[in-house]
Amino acid sequence: MRVIGIDPGLRSTGWGILESNGGMLSHLGNGQFSSSGENLAERLHSIFQQLTTVVADYSPDYAAVENTFVNKDSAGALKLGHARAVALIVPSIAGLPVAEYAPNNIKKSVTGSGHAEKSQIERVVRMQFPSAEIAGSDAADALATALAHILRLQYSRSLDAAISRVVC
Amino acid sequence: MRVIGIDPGLRSTGWGILESNGGMLSHLGNGQFSSSGENLAERLHSIFQQLTTVVADYSPDYAAVENTFVNKDSAGALKLGHARAVALIVPSIAGLPVAEYAPNNIKKSVTGSGHAEKSQIERVVRMQFPSAEIAGSDAADALATALAHILRLQYSRSLDAAISRVVC
Repeated sequence: MRVIGIDPGLRSTGWGILESNGGMLSHLGNGQFSSSGENLAERLHSIFQQLTTVVADYSPDYAAVENTFVNKDSAGALKLGHARAVALIVPSIAGLPVAEYAPNNIKKSVTGSGHAEKSQIERVVRMQFPSAEIAGSDAADALATALAHILRLQYSRSLDAAISRVVC
Repeated sequence: MRVIGIDPGLRSTGWGILESNGGMLSHLGNGQFSSSGENLAERLHSIFQQLTTVVADYSPDYAAVENTFVNKDSAGALKLGHARAVALIVPSIAGLPVAEYAPNNIKKSVTGSGHAEKSQIERVVRMQFPSAEIAGSDAADALATALAHILRLQYSRSLDAAISRVVC
């Protein structure tokens, strides 16, 4: 089971790929890239192309995208909406189921607390994958998003197995 | 010169295709479609696919997208941002230059007043293309967006021609 986690942003988009194989968790890659172009359409197109390349290179089975904290600034929310749309569409075009995670759920799943600091998440990710070179804080957030999704998928599979044991 | 105008929305996206040929303006098609899917990624993907089909069917040379009035509701702005991103990306992937127009500029360009009512825009579009069947108000807005862009392109071309006459 291979998962891509994505932390979308108009300036910088983070991505991280994790694989779970019979309980063994491994880090396959991570990175973060900025958008380029003279207008919004070109910048979104550049995010689309770079993310499409990552998905083609790693062929993940599932995608998880960090959901947005909507603050009071609606102009900022609109911009972030543009970048998130790209993060949702690219894996969907590749045929992957796409899950969305609120930041608090990712924090809770990875550190145990929904109110953990950003630096705490990065520390947990670095501890979990000590040999991985982590490209930056957006890449770390993306890896945390992938980790949260793998933990949920594993939990729901073990729950299914337990239920089938009880039923049988 | 063939232009696609797009009025993006998460519920309904309008599109309209106009062609200007030696000063003759003609309507080639218009429509509006809703998104389908169980989650946001699937809904955006369905908008992406439907809009990609329209662009492939009509092969426009330019695209114009209605810009958003950002109100105080940041959750609404975030959603609208998702739909607009698709409207910007699809023509950009097809290699078209994509222009953005604020609603007031479209109103002013089409009706002469930046504060025209929505019904007034639809009336002008229907008067301009009396034989066209217009699919609904989002399709009419998209045609108005395409019309505003054609008028601007024609204006800048005639300005270029006038300048070159003065220079020569």
